[in-house]
Parts: sequence; C-alpha cells; structure tokens
Amino acid sequence: MGSFRGHALPGTFFLVMGLWWSTKTILKYVCKKHKRTCYLSSKALFHRVEILEGVVVVGMALTGMAGEQFIPGGPYLTLYKEGQWNQLLGWHHFTMYFFFGLLGVANILCFTVSSLPVSLTKLMLSNGLFVEAFIFYNHTHGREMLDIFVHQLLFLVTFLTGLVAFLEFLIRNNVLLELLRSSLILLQGSWFWQIGFVLYPPGGGPAWDLMDHDNSMFLTICFCWHYALAYIIIGVNYAFVTWLVKSRLRRLCPSEVGLLKNVEREQESEEEM
Amino acid sequence: MGSFRGHALPGTFFLVMGLWWSTKTILKYVCKKHKRTCYLSSKALFHRVEILEGVVVVGMALTGMAGEQFIPGGPYLTLYKEGQWNQLLGWHHFTMYFFFGLLGVANILCFTVSSLPVSLTKLMLSNGLFVEAFIFYNHTHGREMLDIFVHQLLFLVTFLTGLVAFLEFLIRNNVLLELLRSSLILLQGSWFWQIGFVLYPPGGGPAWDLMDHDNSMFLTICFCWHYALAYIIIGVNYAFVTWLVKSRLRRLCPSEVGLLKNVEREQESEEEM
Amino acid sequence: MGSFRGHALPGTFFLVMGLWWSTKTILKYVCKKHKRTCYLSSKALFHRVEILEGVVVVGMALTGMAGEQFIPGGPYLTLYKEGQWNQLLGWHHFTMYFFFGLLGVANILCFTVSSLPVSLTKLMLSNGLFVEAFIFYNHTHGREMLDIFVHQLLFLVTFLTGLVAFLEFLIRNNVLLELLRSSLILLQGSWFWQIGFVLYPPGGGPAWDLMDHDNSMFLTICFCWHYALAYIIIGVNYAFVTWLVKSRLRRLCPSEVGLLKNVEREQESEEEM
Amino acid sequence: MGSFRGHALPGTFFLVMGLWWSTKTILKYVCKKHKRTCYLSSKALFHRVEILEGVVVVGMALTGMAGEQFIPGGPYLTLYKEGQWNQLLGWHHFTMYFFFGLLGVANILCFTVSSLPVSLTKLMLSNGLFVEAFIFYNHTHGREMLDIFVHQLLFLVTFLTGLVAFLEFLIRNNVLLELLRSSLILLQGSWFWQIGFVLYPPGGGPAWDLMDHDNSMFLTICFCWHYALAYIIIGVNYAFVTWLVKSRLRRLCPSEVGLLKNVEREQESEEEM
Repeated sequence: MGSFRGHALPGTFFLVMGLWWSTKTILKYVCKKHKRTCYLSSKALFHRVEILEGVVVVGMALTGMAGEQFIPGGPYLTLYKEGQWNQLLGWHHFTMYFFFGLLGVANILCFTVSSLPVSLTKLMLSNGLFVEAFIFYNHTHGREMLDIFVHQLLFLVTFLTGLVAFLEFLIRNNVLLELLRSSLILLQGSWFWQIGFVLYPPGGGPAWDLMDHDNSMFLTICFCWHYALAYIIIGVNYAFVTWLVKSRLRRLCPSEVGLLKNVEREQESEEEM
Repeated sequence: MGSFRGHALPGTFFLVMGLWWSTKTILKYVCKKHKRTCYLSSKALFHRVEILEGVVVVGMALTGMAGEQFIPGGPYLTLYKEGQWNQLLGWHHFTMYFFFGLLGVANILCFTVSSLPVSLTKLMLSNGLFVEAFIFYNHTHGREMLDIFVHQLLFLVTFLTGLVAFLEFLIRNNVLLELLRSSLILLQGSWFWQIGFVLYPPGGGPAWDLMDHDNSMFLTICFCWHYALAYIIIGVNYAFVTWLVKSRLRRLCPSEVGLLKNVEREQESEEEM
Repeated sequence: MGSFRGHALPGTFFLVMGLWWSTKTILKYVCKKHKRTCYLSSKALFHRVEILEGVVVVGMALTGMAGEQFIPGGPYLTLYKEGQWNQLLGWHHFTMYFFFGLLGVANILCFTVSSLPVSLTKLMLSNGLFVEAFIFYNHTHGREMLDIFVHQLLFLVTFLTGLVAFLEFLIRNNVLLELLRSSLILLQGSWFWQIGFVLYPPGGGPAWDLMDHDNSMFLTICFCWHYALAYIIIGVNYAFVTWLVKSRLRRLCPSEVGLLKNVEREQESEEEM
Repeated sequence: MGSFRGHALPGTFFLVMGLWWSTKTILKYVCKKHKRTCYLSSKALFHRVEILEGVVVVGMALTGMAGEQFIPGGPYLTLYKEGQWNQLLGWHHFTMYFFFGLLGVANILCFTVSSLPVSLTKLMLSNGLFVEAFIFYNHTHGREMLDIFVHQLLFLVTFLTGLVAFLEFLIRNNVLLELLRSSLILLQGSWFWQIGFVLYPPGGGPAWDLMDHDNSMFLTICFCWHYALAYIIIGVNYAFVTWLVKSRLRRLCPSEVGLLKNVEREQESEEEM
C-alpha cells in the first residue's frame, strides 16, 4: 500500500466479489421465482460454487498478504527492527487480509464438513469487515485532513457492510439484505480506487490539496455517486440475469411451473398488503 | 437553497409526503379493522396508488434537482470551474434530491414488475434518508454555531427516520412503525421551514444571533414542540379517517362484517395480555 | 428545578412508577405461571388498572408542568421577555413533563378506544424518554464539570430506558424486558435524588467541589450501586409478590391448575435446552 | 489492581470462563447433532452443571472483591478517609466484581427456583458486562495516552460482549452467537494479560513508552491477533469435542440415531438454500 497499486488491488478484489455476490444472489432469487427444479439452482451445484468461492477468497487473501510483506521495501515478515516497530502500516494491511482469509477458510469448511452451521460464513464475513473497520479507524494517526477524511469514509462503509452482514447472519434468506451487502461491497471497491486517485494520482497528475475543505465537500457527494453507481450496476445485473434465466433456461428446464408460479405470486401479494 | 425558498420547498415536499403516508397507513389499518372486503382497501387500487405515488416522488425530485441547478446564480451543471469546485452546496442538495428520485423509481418498478420484492421501496426510502443524513453531516463546515446546530437537528431527525424506515424493511406491516415514520417525516418538513425562518427571516425581519447559546437552547425545545405538533396532526388525521370510514363507507360496503370483527378483536385482546 | 425539590419531585415520580410497573409485571407473570383463571389476572381488571395508570401519569405530568411554570420566580407561561428568552431551563423541564403527559393520554385512549393498538403506549413511553434524553443532552451548556457529568449519566439512563421501551414495543410480552425497563426507571428516579443531593445539598451541608475529578470517579460507581439497589428492590418485590400470590390467592381461586402447571413447566424446560 | 497480578487475575478468570462456555456450547450442539438421547446431553446434568457454574462464578467474584479490598495497601472497606475519597480505582474494580457476582447468584437461582425465566442469566451477563464497560469508560481520567488506549480497547471488547450477550437474551439457542460471545470473552481475558504486560512488565523488563503512537499502532493489530487466537482456540476446541463425542460416546449411547440424523440433516440443508 502507500501507493496507487496498493489501493487498486483491494479495490479490484472488492469489486469482483461484489459483482459475483450480487450475481449469485440474483440468480438464486430468480431461479426460485421462476422454477424450482432446474440444475442451475440445485443444491449440489451451489455447494461446489461456495467451495470454489472460498478457495478464490483464500487466494486473494494470500496474494494480498504476500504483496504487503514482499513488495520492495516491505517488512519481509520482520515486526521489530533496530529498537522500533517495522512498517506497522504494512502489518495493518496484512492483518486485514488475514481475516478475509479466515472467511475463505470458513467458506470451505462449512460446505465440506456437514456438521458446521452454514451461517458461520456470514459471521466470519461480518467479523472480517468489523476487524477491517477497527484497523482503519486506528490507521491514520498524524496524517493530513483529506487523507483522514477518505479513510473515515472507508471506515464508514466497512462498518456498515459489517452491520449488514451481521444482520444477514441473524435474518437468513432475505434477498434484499444480500443485495444491499453486495452494493456496499461494490461501493467499498470503487472507493478504494477513488482513494488511490486522490492520494496517489497515477500518471504524474497534480496532487490534490490535502488541506482544502472544498475537496472534502466534493468527496462527500462523490462517495454518494459511487453508491448510486453501485445501485445501477446491481440493477443492470438484475435485469440481465432475469432476461438470461427467462430466455435461455426456458428451453432447458421447461414445464411443471405454470401453476406453481401463480400460487406463489398470490401468496406473496397477499403478504404484501 | 441558501435562501428561504430553498428550505421551504423541501419542507413542503416532506410535509405533503408525511401527511399522505400517514393518511394511507391509517386508511389501510382502519379498513382492515372494520371490514376486509371493500374496494377502497382492495389490492388493485393500492397498487395504482403506489405507482402514482412513485410518479409524484419522481416529479418532486426532478423539481428539486432542476431548482438547485438552474436558479439564477446556480451551478448550471458545471461541477468544476476556473480551478475550483463550483457551488458544491448546490450539488449536495442536488445529490439528495437524486436519491429520493431513486425512491420514486423503485416505487414505480416494484408495483409494475411483479418479480421485484415490495420491501425494496422501504429499503430505498431508508437509503435515501441515510444519504441525506450523511450529506447534512458533512454539509456545514465553517459555519456559525446556530447554523450548525439546526442542521445537526436535521441530521438527527433524518437519521432516525432512516432507522425507522430500515426497521420497517425488516418488520413489515407494523402500523405504528409506519405512523412513527410519517410523524418523523412531518417533523423534518416543519423543521425545514423552521430553519428557513431562523437563517433567512422572510419579510426582512431581524436576523437571529447565530452565536447566542440561548437561541440553541430555545431551538432544542422548539424541535420537541414541532414533534408534538406532528403527533397531534397524526392523531387528528386518525380520528378524521376513522370517522370517515365509519360514517361514509358503512353505506357503500355493508354487512358480512359483524361476526368477523368480534372474532378478530378477541384474538387481539388475547395477545395483548 | 434548579433546587433540591425540583429534582426530588421527578425522582419520586419515577420511583413510584418504577415500583408500580415492576409490581404489575411480576403480578401478571406470577398469575400466569400459577393459574390462569383468577379475577386478579382478568383482562377487565387490567384494563381498568391501565386507565387508572394513565390518569395518574397525566396527573403527575400536570403537577410537574404547573410546578415548573408557577413556582415563585418561574416563567409564568412567558417565553420571551424584554428582548431575550425567559427561563429556558424551566421551559425545558415543562416540555419533558408534557411528553410524559402524552404517554398518559395514550394510555387512557388505548384502553378506552378499542381500535387503537395497545403497543402505542410502549411507543409513547419510549418517545417520552427519548425526548427527555434529547433535552438533557442539550441542557447543560456552560455548566461546571460535575454538573455536566451527573446530567450525562441521567442522559445515559434515560436513553437506555428509551431503547428498552422501544424493544418492548417491537417484542411484546417479554417479562424480563419489562423488568429491565422498570429497574432502569427506578435507577433514574434514585439518580434524580442523587443529583439533588450533589448539586443542592439539603440542610445547608457543604457543597460538593464541582471541579474535582475524584468526585466524578466516585459518582461513576455510585451510579452502579444505585443500579444494584434497583435490582435488589425488584428481587425483593418478586419474592414478595410470589409469596403473596401463593399464600393468599390459593384460597381464593383454587384448583383446576395442577395439571396445567406441569404441562406448562415441561414445555418451558424443553425450550430452554 | 494497579499491578501485573491485578490484571492477570481477571484475565485468568475470563480465559477460564471463555474456555468453559465454548466447550459447553459445542458439547450441547454436537450432542444434539449426533444423538438426542444420551445422558451427557440430558437436562438433569445440564441443570446441575449450571448451578455449579453459578457457584464458581460467585467464588471468582468473591475472590476478586476480597483481593481488591484486602491486598496490602488496599482500601480495607473504607470509602472516605481524611476528607477525600479513598482508593477509588480499587472500589471501581470491586464494583465490577460485584456485578459478576450477581450473575453467579442469578445462575444459581434460575436453576433452583423453577419459576424464574432461564434467560435471566443472559440478561445478568450482559448487564455485568455493560456495567464493566461503563466503569472502564470512566476509569482512566488523567492517565497517559497508551494507558488510555489499552483501556479503550478493553471497553470496546467488553461493550461488544455485552451486546452479543443481550442479543443472546433476545434470540435464544443460536449456537454461533454463543460461540461469538465465548470468543469475545477469551479475547477479553487475553487482553487483560496483554495490558498487564504493557503497563507493568513483569520480571523488571523495560517499560513501554506510553506516549509513543507507534506503540498504539502496534497494539491495534496485536488486539486483532489476540482475536484470531481466540478463534483458533475455539476451532481446535470444536474439533476436539466433536472427535471426543464421535469416538467415545458412540460406544456408550449407541443406535436409534441413524435415521433421525439423516432426516435432520436434510431439513437443515433445505433451509440453508
């Protein structure tokens, strides 16, 4: 970290996970709405996908941990050197990645060891996010105003995502909560990129004035626009997945649905009133 | 904004929405209590009303957005001009209106596209309110004490309304939660008017002393009185709607109720104990 | 206020209400546990008691409001006098009493008008407490350290009680939540007395040093001891009511219970595991 | 307190309780998963264990209270001496231990007096933790930066544990919530040891520089590592208990399970989707 790349890497990780989680949630939801019996929504497939997801998360975490330690000028696993702490900020990031690694491990374990409760993954996710929020909160001692401000916003979104993930842990199978979490993950990803552009302008552009309150005023609404963007991405994703399921899969797994769907829809519209 | 009108406009919007939402909630509740079979409480009607509501909200949001951009001296869609940010406060308000516009869009989509979950509207409402609270929190850098204080109160009420809307998203069909939200929306509306009167006294009255702590002490209880007023408005509304339903609609949709009502009331009084 | 009596009065009100609410809760719970059919636990009696409670609360609120306005040297309903606000602190207290008056009104209405949802009383209680907390939060501008500290603790307990009352509004019929709320109300009552003793020592005792941090350190644990006392009061109350119901009422409303009790107890112990 | 031992003692208490609670939770969960009929998971045994637990907690609390009062140089039950408060910090700790003593008493009462609701123990636990958090929050007036920081972290973990215990009070029988609480208790225990090492290095080692922000940066991640350790302890515990139940108890309480287990597992995997 401390560079454009150091912010672009986790940003990309979060964007990928946000996109993937929103797609998974929508796919599950739409499959459930339109028919119940197809292979794509089968438990066997989803179990394998969850295990794969865990492996990918562990891979990302290991990449991040290795990157923090072994970049040129990094701490190289040395915590204490010559009478003082060695590159603590790098160790901060290392710790964050480590807790997301735990999330990946939990994902793998939950779907291979059948006795473990599945909501453990949600708990580990909210845990990883709270740890990240905690570390970012104590991360910016002695920096300049705008630097602190953008990290405070990062803290805010991380903390909120942790809260939503914890709510998911308590209230299972609420599709909107899952999409809300995905949108906040997307926001976090794109905000990492934004921080990179603000603090380490790539291409040698002029740096932002870190003491100018107008900049923080702008970044306030910029943050909201990122959020609006996350919403739009998820909306487009929803429309796309719905279209895909309707057009493609109608051919593959037909019939037996018509009646069920109507019954279901009525039940729902009843509970809406 | 930055004028009396700029505060009166959103204030009026919120007052109208608060009145409308409280009326809708009470009407639904009273209809359900007194009979179940009338047209007024039919799903078809409520769906159409919800779509209309969405259109009205979008209209309000567009009015607000256009007003912020194209008033004389406004930013005219220019974000960056002559090496500095252009009228960021106007852009702040613009962003708030935009998120309420998203609420309207969600309202329209939810009741036209049947596969979307209806509680999405509650989520978008709480979202819009949280974004508004977030922006107001970062809105008052460098202003004077009383100016900051009235905006902090605005932040408080907006944040609380967002929380209540989020609770509604989780706990559906609780009539008191809906009325609580309506009362907080009314409070927000009348508080916008109060801010207008405090910061930009119309009719050329003498300005308030923005550094006097007695004024903030007074506004503290003034805020509570506004809230009491919102309660009284909702109480009167409740009495009026109940009377209307009882007197008018008894003629239109009679009978078949007597027995049901008694059964229902007993169930309720049982669960009260 | 601003005197020993001004703190002893609300303190006594809260102590009385706390005692009464805990007794009512325990009585309901024990009656339900031991037999279901007696007059004391009948709905008719409890409805009348609730209405009486409402009347008492309104009476207390009116006493407090009148006391704040018409004590010698009080504001006498004048809000603005000679170019400045008149006795705003008195108006603060007046507003707090007013919202508790609303609670009493809600109590009366809920148990006379059958169409109103009963949980409205919980909502109004939590509302009154939140308003009280809000006003206390903005109440102590420019005072000395210890004065601010004891009011902050008052804010804390009021806010927590409001939260618990709101939880009760969402989760009905949880006996421990109701007792928790009663214990916090008792704590608030005895803390009002403590504030009176600290800020206005009766009997002409020496005043406390308001700038000494040792005093605030002591009041921290003193606050906890008050809380422990509230617990002990409720425990004794529980033992007494249980004994009363068991010994007295066994004669009045006998039999028909034996079997039911066993069944019930088994169900409970099952759900405990 | 105010010494290495004064921090090691509560640290050990919390570590023991955390280990014991996690073991109990896992044992219950695994027994329930694998068979329902064995003596080890019987109600009678668990009741006795809970009472024993209460006695142990009371014993710990009494040890702590006596230790705080009667160490050489302690307050010896004198609160006010020679015109000033006597050793308030010792009284602070005394009060904390007292509230945990109440937890032990509640544990004993709940499982001997059958009419008391069992969730009272969770409420008293969350209560004791909130009181501890409250006292720690007001505990560090006038100390140095790092001293305040480590106590703030202690406040954080105590407050969070209290929140989780309160959630458990509301949502019963969620195994992951119970393990989360155990892990936070373990974290608190090991953090007490860490505080002892930081503020009172045993063995005459060099003291930490209490004004160096690098140290607080390090302790931030150190806190997270303690947490990761708590997770690993619980994971190992889970694996060990599962192995024990599977290997040992299969012989003792065999049969009658096969079918049930499969049914159960299917139900669960269904609800997971």
